[in-house]
Amino acid sequence: MNAIPATLLQQTEQLSESVTRPIPGSRKIHVEGSRPDIRVAMREVALSQTPTLFGGEANPPVSIYDPSGPYTDPAVAIDLAAGLAPLRAGWIEERGDTERLAALSSEFGRARESNAKLDSVRFPNRALPRRAKAGFNVSQMHYAKRGIVTPEMEYVAIRENQRLDAVREAHLLMQHPGESFGANIQKIITPEFVRDEIARGRAILPNNINHPESEPMIIGRNFLTKINANIGNSAVSSGIAEEVEKLVWAIRWGGDTVMDLSTGKHIHETREWIIRNSPVPIGTVPIYQALEKVDGRAEELTWEIFRDTLIEQAEQGVDYFTIHAGVLLRYVPLTAKRTTGIVSRGGSILAKWCLAHHRENFLYTHFEDICEIMKAYDVAFSLGDGLRPGCLADANDAAQFGELETLGELTKIAWKHDVQTMIEGPGHVPMHLIKENMDKQLRECGEAPFYTLGPLTTDIAPGYDHITSAIGAAMIGWYGTAMLCYVTPKEHLGLPNRQDVRDGIMAYKIAAHAADLAKGHPGAQVRDNALSKARFEFRWEDQFHLGLDPEKAKEFHDETLPKDAHKVAHFCSMCGPHFCSMKITQDVRDYAAEKGVADEAAALEAGMAEKAAEFRAQGAQVYRKE
Amino acid sequence: MNAIPATLLQQTEQLSESVTRPIPGSRKIHVEGSRPDIRVAMREVALSQTPTLFGGEANPPVSIYDPSGPYTDPAVAIDLAAGLAPLRAGWIEERGDTERLAALSSEFGRARESNAKLDSVRFPNRALPRRAKAGFNVSQMHYAKRGIVTPEMEYVAIRENQRLDAVREAHLLMQHPGESFGANIQKIITPEFVRDEIARGRAILPNNINHPESEPMIIGRNFLTKINANIGNSAVSSGIAEEVEKLVWAIRWGGDTVMDLSTGKHIHETREWIIRNSPVPIGTVPIYQALEKVDGRAEELTWEIFRDTLIEQAEQGVDYFTIHAGVLLRYVPLTAKRTTGIVSRGGSILAKWCLAHHRENFLYTHFEDICEIMKAYDVAFSLGDGLRPGCLADANDAAQFGELETLGELTKIAWKHDVQTMIEGPGHVPMHLIKENMDKQLRECGEAPFYTLGPLTTDIAPGYDHITSAIGAAMIGWYGTAMLCYVTPKEHLGLPNRQDVRDGIMAYKIAAHAADLAKGHPGAQVRDNALSKARFEFRWEDQFHLGLDPEKAKEFHDETLPKDAHKVAHFCSMCGPHFCSMKITQDVRDYAAEKGVADEAAALEAGMAEKAAEFRAQGAQVYRKE
Repeated sequence: MNAIPATLLQQTEQLSESVTRPIPGSRKIHVEGSRPDIRVAMREVALSQTPTLFGGEANPPVSIYDPSGPYTDPAVAIDLAAGLAPLRAGWIEERGDTERLAALSSEFGRARESNAKLDSVRFPNRALPRRAKAGFNVSQMHYAKRGIVTPEMEYVAIRENQRLDAVREAHLLMQHPGESFGANIQKIITPEFVRDEIARGRAILPNNINHPESEPMIIGRNFLTKINANIGNSAVSSGIAEEVEKLVWAIRWGGDTVMDLSTGKHIHETREWIIRNSPVPIGTVPIYQALEKVDGRAEELTWEIFRDTLIEQAEQGVDYFTIHAGVLLRYVPLTAKRTTGIVSRGGSILAKWCLAHHRENFLYTHFEDICEIMKAYDVAFSLGDGLRPGCLADANDAAQFGELETLGELTKIAWKHDVQTMIEGPGHVPMHLIKENMDKQLRECGEAPFYTLGPLTTDIAPGYDHITSAIGAAMIGWYGTAMLCYVTPKEHLGLPNRQDVRDGIMAYKIAAHAADLAKGHPGAQVRDNALSKARFEFRWEDQFHLGLDPEKAKEFHDETLPKDAHKVAHFCSMCGPHFCSMKITQDVRDYAAEKGVADEAAALEAGMAEKAAEFRAQGAQVYRKE
Repeated sequence: MNAIPATLLQQTEQLSESVTRPIPGSRKIHVEGSRPDIRVAMREVALSQTPTLFGGEANPPVSIYDPSGPYTDPAVAIDLAAGLAPLRAGWIEERGDTERLAALSSEFGRARESNAKLDSVRFPNRALPRRAKAGFNVSQMHYAKRGIVTPEMEYVAIRENQRLDAVREAHLLMQHPGESFGANIQKIITPEFVRDEIARGRAILPNNINHPESEPMIIGRNFLTKINANIGNSAVSSGIAEEVEKLVWAIRWGGDTVMDLSTGKHIHETREWIIRNSPVPIGTVPIYQALEKVDGRAEELTWEIFRDTLIEQAEQGVDYFTIHAGVLLRYVPLTAKRTTGIVSRGGSILAKWCLAHHRENFLYTHFEDICEIMKAYDVAFSLGDGLRPGCLADANDAAQFGELETLGELTKIAWKHDVQTMIEGPGHVPMHLIKENMDKQLRECGEAPFYTLGPLTTDIAPGYDHITSAIGAAMIGWYGTAMLCYVTPKEHLGLPNRQDVRDGIMAYKIAAHAADLAKGHPGAQVRDNALSKARFEFRWEDQFHLGLDPEKAKEFHDETLPKDAHKVAHFCSMCGPHFCSMKITQDVRDYAAEKGVADEAAALEAGMAEKAAEFRAQGAQVYRKE
C-alpha cells in the first residue's frame, strides 16, 4: 500500500466527499433475481402525497435506471486503491471455461509490471488476469447462441424493466404508442429475449471476463438507448487520479459506458485504476496506445505491436475496442477533396499507414486474428468509423459509406467467431441526411447495434456542440441507434472540464430519453408523467428529484425564490402568486368534474349557466390579494 | 429631459459599455436597395488567408443575418432616452394613408400620460402615434394583395439573401439538396416573391406603423427560420432599465423578434422604452395587461377593457399581439382530465372567463372588431394556443387540436380583413408526434406561419429545457415552422437571468439554422462550409468569428490553450502537437493530388507503391518531436 502516492490518496478522500454523495431524493435499491447473487442496482425516488387541493392521493415511487454504481450508495465504503467488489467473479468462475494466467500475456504489460519506477502510479495488488481455456469461447454471444441464459443476461433483463410492475397500477404507464421504425420493442424484457437479441447480434452485453467489477448492461436497438462519455488525458493535461474522478463524475450523471481515450505517459496505469473502479463497461481505442509505442510514427506500426496492445488491454479488462478495420486503402483517396478530410484520429493513423506502405490496412488483413483475441476475453468490437465526416459538407459521401459497407462485411466475420460487435457512426450530418445513415447501417450490418457520435446538425456553433449534436443524437436514436457517444460544449475547442462533462451527459441523457419516448419503449413515459404530475401539483421537491439533474433544478429554482417556503408554495416564480395558470386549471377541473363534463364535448350539453355565478364567487377567492 | 431618473441614465451608460461592443471579428455593413433610404444592415466576417501549407488562397468574407440593430454598430451613438432613429418613418408617411393623432385613443393611455407620478419612469418626448385614415387599411398584407411592393418588402428580400452573390464563386455555396416537405424554397429572394408570400398569407412582415424604428424582417416557411426571445418582468422581479438591457442582450445574440411578457407595475411605461429602442418587432400578450386592469380577476374582464388595451398597445407600436381567440367554451372541459390541464397563462385566463360567464370567449365573438383595430396600425395576429399541452401526456389531444381547427377558421377571417396572421403552437410533444402538429397546422391554417414554443421532447430535464426543446424546435422548423419561440434553461423553475437568455437564444439559433440546412434553404450551408474550412486549416480566429457565439468559443479555447501563439498553431488542444488527424489528412490530400487520384477509386489504379517510400520520409517529419 505504501506504493500509493500521497496525492492520489488525497484524491480518494475528495472523491468520497464531493462526487459520491447520494443523488438528492433518491435511494439505492437492489432488485433480486433468480439467485441471491443477482442484485440489480437502481435508484428509487420516493414521492410525496398530492396536496389535498389537488386530490390528496399517494404517489408511488419511481425507479430510475442507474449506472452510477456503488459511488452513490451510502452503504458502500469506497476505497479506490482496493477497487470495486468483483460482482461478476463468481459467474465467470462457475462457467469453468476460463483460467487464471500465471503471468501477463502481453510483453508490454510485463515490462510495465516489472518497472519499479512505476510503483508510485501503479494500482496495487491486482490479481492476475483470466483467459479462456484453450479452445473455448467466453463471449456472451457464444453462450447466447448455445441457448444459455447467463446471470449477466438476467441482470440486464431486470435492469431494463426498471420495476415497471411497481407503477403499472398508478396510471403512470399511460403512454403514446411509439413509432419504432421496425424495432422489436417488448412490453416486458425477459432474460430469454436478452439472450435471443445477443445471439442474433442485435445487441451486445460488453463485459470482459477481466472486468468482473462491471454491472451488466446491454446495447441494442430494442433496449433503452444508452450513452457513452469519453474521458482521457492528452499530451496537454491530466493525471491518473483526475481520470478516476472523471469516471465517477460521468457515471454519476448517467454515462452508461465510458471510453478512456488517454494518450499520455501513464496510459497503462491510468487504465488499470479506471477499470478496477468502474461499474460500467470501459471502451478504448487501442491504436492510440500502439501509436505511442512507436513514438507517434504511424508508418512504423506493425501487427505485432498492435496485437500485443490488444492483449495488454484485454487482460486489464477493457470491455470494447474501437477497431478501425474499415479504413481500406482504396477509400483513403476518396477523402482528398473533402472539406475536412479525415477527422477520426484512428482513421487518420490507419490512412497514413496504408499510404506509407501502399498496403491494405493491417487491421483488416488481420481481422480474424483479432477475433481470436476478442473471444478469449469477451471483448466486444466497436468497429470504428475512421472516415466519418468532420463537417456537414462531407456527410454521407463515398468514403463514409464505402467504409460502412466494409464494416458490414467485418460484422459477419466477427459473428462467425461469436464476437459481440457494434458499429460506430457519424459525426456531422444535417437533419435530413441522418435517416439514410441509420437505414444503411441496419441494412449493411445486419442490425448490429449502431453507436454514433452525435451527429452534429450544424457546424456553426463552436462552444455549443453538445446541443448541435443532441439534436442529431435524439433523431438517430429514435431511428434505431443503440448508443449515443456524447459531445461536450468544448468539442473542437479544448478539453472538457467537469462542468463540460456534466453538460455533455445531460444533453445526451435528454437525447436518449427523447428517443426512447418516440420509439415507444415500454414505460419510458413513466418518469415524464410522474414529473409532470408533480409539476402541476406544485410538488417542487418531487419535480427536482425526478429530473435528470436534481441539483441543478433546485439551484435554478432557488435563484429566483430561495425561501424554503416557496418549495411548497402553490404558485411558481414565473407568474407570481396572483397569476397562475395551474391554479386556474384546477378550478376548471373541479368544475368539470362536478358537472360530469370531463370527458367529451358533453360539456356543451350540460347546463353550465346555472353554475356560473357560483363559480365566479369561488374564482374571486382564487385571485384574492394575499 | 429632467424626467429621466438618474438610475436609468446610469443603466444607459452601462448599456453602451457592456452589451453594445461590436461582435468580435464582425463589422456592420449596409447593403443599399433601389433607393438610398433602403440600407439593409448585416454583419460581415472578414476571413484570413489560408496558410501556405494548405494552399494559401484568400477566403471571401461571409455575410451574416444580423438582428442586433445599431447597438453593435460603433458608428452609431446610442441614447436610450432618445430612442432609435425612425428608419421607416419616411416610408410610412409617403404612403399617405395614415395620420398623426391629436391625442392617444386609449383611455388608459391618456390616463398614464397625464399621471405626473409616472414622470420619473416615462419615456421622454414621445411623438403622438399614427393611425390609418378612416377607411384605409395599412397592413403589409393589404398592400401586397394590391400588388404593391413596399420598401419594407424590398428590405426583407435583400436581408434574406445575405449577399449570397459575394460567395457564389467561392465554392462555399456547395450544399446538400434539402428536404423541404413541400415548402417553396427559392434560390434568390426577390421583393416580388416577398410580396407574393405576404399576399398569400404564407408570411408576415410584422411592423406596426407606430414602430418606425424596426428593421423589417419576415416570418414564413419559405424564408429563413426565425427565433423569438421573451423578456418581461413579473410580480417577483425586474425594472424598466433592466428590461431594455434584456432586449439589447437578446438581439445581440440573434433574437429576431422579442416578446415583452411583463406583468408588473409599470408595464405601460416599460413597453414604451422597449419599443422606442427596439430594432426588432415586439410582440405582447395584451390579455396580461388587461387582467392587471381588473386586479387579476379574470371573470371581470370585458371586451371594452380589452379593446382599450389593444388600442393602447397598438398606438405604442407593438408589432404583433398574441390573441387567445381559439379557447372556446366547448374545449375547456376537454382539458379537465389532462395531466397538466391548461398551462398557457392566456389560455387559462380565458378558460376561467368562459366558465365564469358560461359564455363564448369574447375574443372569439369580437374577432372581427379586433381585426378592425389590427389593420388600422398594421399589428399582426399571433393566434395563441391557449390549450397547448403542458406535458408529453397531453400532447396532440382533442383540446389542443380542437383549438387549432378554430385558429384555422380565424385565420381565414383575419385574411378577409387583410390582417397578417401567424399561429402559435406547442409546447410539449414527443418527437414522433411533432410532424402531425405541423401537417395539421399547414392544412387547417392555409399555410399561415407557424410559431411554436419548442416543442419540448421530454419532461424529465428541468434545468435543461433549452435542450429538450431545441431538439423539437429543430425538427418542427425543418417540417415548416416559421418562427421558434425560445425556451431558457430556467423554464419551469424560475426567471431567466442574462446567461440563461444567452443560452436559450444559442440553442434556438442552432435549431433554426439546423432547420434551414435540412430544408435546403439557399446558402444556408455557406457559413458551415466557411467555418469547417477554417477549422480544418487551423484558422482559429476565423472559426471563432464565424460561430454563433465568438466570445464563448474563444473563451473555451483559451481555457485549455490560453497562449496567443496557439491560435495560429497547426494543432489543436484535443490531441496535442504530435497527434493530429487534420495534419495527417493534409498529407493524404497532398499525396492524392500529386498522384491525380483525388476523385474516385482511380486511387487503386494509380501506382502508389513507388511513392510509398518518399511519403514515409515526409511523414516522419510530420511527427517529429518539437
